[in-house]
Amino acid sequence: MSDKRPIGVFDSGLGGLTVVKELKKVLPQETIVYFGDTGRVPYGNKSREIIRRYALQDERLLLSNGVKLIIAACGTVSSVAKDTESELPVPFVEVVSHAALAATKATKNKKIGVIGTAATIKSRAHRNYILSHMPDAEVYENSCPLFVPLVEEGITSVGDTMAVEAAKRYLEPIIKEGIDTLILGCTHYPVLSEVIRKICGDGVTLINMGEATAAYVKEFMTENDMLSQERTAPDRYLVSDKSESFSEMARTLLGSDDIEAETVDIEKI
Amino acid sequence: MSDKRPIGVFDSGLGGLTVVKELKKVLPQETIVYFGDTGRVPYGNKSREIIRRYALQDERLLLSNGVKLIIAACGTVSSVAKDTESELPVPFVEVVSHAALAATKATKNKKIGVIGTAATIKSRAHRNYILSHMPDAEVYENSCPLFVPLVEEGITSVGDTMAVEAAKRYLEPIIKEGIDTLILGCTHYPVLSEVIRKICGDGVTLINMGEATAAYVKEFMTENDMLSQERTAPDRYLVSDKSESFSEMARTLLGSDDIEAETVDIEKI
Repeated sequence: MSDKRPIGVFDSGLGGLTVVKELKKVLPQETIVYFGDTGRVPYGNKSREIIRRYALQDERLLLSNGVKLIIAACGTVSSVAKDTESELPVPFVEVVSHAALAATKATKNKKIGVIGTAATIKSRAHRNYILSHMPDAEVYENSCPLFVPLVEEGITSVGDTMAVEAAKRYLEPIIKEGIDTLILGCTHYPVLSEVIRKICGDGVTLINMGEATAAYVKEFMTENDMLSQERTAPDRYLVSDKSESFSEMARTLLGSDDIEAETVDIEKI
Repeated sequence: MSDKRPIGVFDSGLGGLTVVKELKKVLPQETIVYFGDTGRVPYGNKSREIIRRYALQDERLLLSNGVKLIIAACGTVSSVAKDTESELPVPFVEVVSHAALAATKATKNKKIGVIGTAATIKSRAHRNYILSHMPDAEVYENSCPLFVPLVEEGITSVGDTMAVEAAKRYLEPIIKEGIDTLILGCTHYPVLSEVIRKICGDGVTLINMGEATAAYVKEFMTENDMLSQERTAPDRYLVSDKSESFSEMARTLLGSDDIEAETVDIEKI
């Protein structure tokens, strides 16, 4: 059997494209419908109520596009609005739990760092998942509120003083605790990998939520007979506002030149 | 005659409070209804279409609160959505033109710098106003996309490396052109005054749009017999999302301890 319906993926902006990149590596025959809420980005500095409302609208938009599964490719939504899944008629996958499990497998000294948006860190979602797998782990968290704006502005290079200063500010307090593993708890952060790596050094394993989640999605879809045997339609990229950074980042991350984002009115959903 | 209706003021977030601060200095007997769109902040990295739509919603919200005049206390809205005033039944005041006039009065060497959001700088609104008053002025512009996120996160002190690095990045290219006057073309930027002053030095006059606009509003309301003779109601602060930074900044800027923001659903307006 072949389920040709697309996989729906959403994020506050372009961060979720790091998850799409990993999905395409392990599930190249699947069609993706992506929604980036570029008209309301960022989510991570907003309240739980607003994030939930935005997540529900994003999910409805994907459902109206006939998706067979929805991935919240957004650390903030995964951390504070996971329960919106109860209202969905299709399976829902978030990015936090699989990354937390991967971190417990990677750590040697059981000292794990977590960085994310203010809303994500406040939720303690990563910490709770880590401790459920590894009760004696030590978890050190810090929120990095400027990372999403930096990525959305394309300020992400190791040669960029602002990016490096931001990384120092946010990472040094948790590095000095002796962590050997760091969860990039926001899907925007892999875009800053080089900068983060420069500050952390080679002794720290970086956990990319997209990678951990894509592996899980493949396993889940295989078990539940949801795989598509062949690609029948092109991927689609929907945004709530035209964004040059989005198209640029889509090209850079996904290595394709013909990505054209379509604008949708998310407030009317 | 006394017109006791409130003045409506709006911004994408807390930046407009710098305008309220100046209004309260010159018009202490007026009641203010403020709206900060903290659920969708920032505006300056969004497209013209989205900014116009958000501005129209913000204006409708203020109208539903019975205001006698609306101030777009937002450089971005003033620059790219000024024409929404044609749909309003009350006078509309924007913050760009009065600041541009003030800059032409302040400059000695006719070299004027302008900083603002990406949308503001792209609109060339300040440049056009400056040149209409002073055709031989030289205008040097730069967009500062990280300034609004920095202010909204409260990272605004001269002791803060990130704020100083951002200011260097954005200001040095225009300072080296020899400007003697700099328009802070976004109402968030006065909160960064000390940092901006540190990078510019004392030889550059900083133009605060709120100050220039408040002086104009007083003049306009006096001429049009719109002044209130006595305050009859407390000011109100409306936001589209709960925000701790908002309350903190309101207290710091307005020096009052009893500012309690009310949350409204702006997408339903």
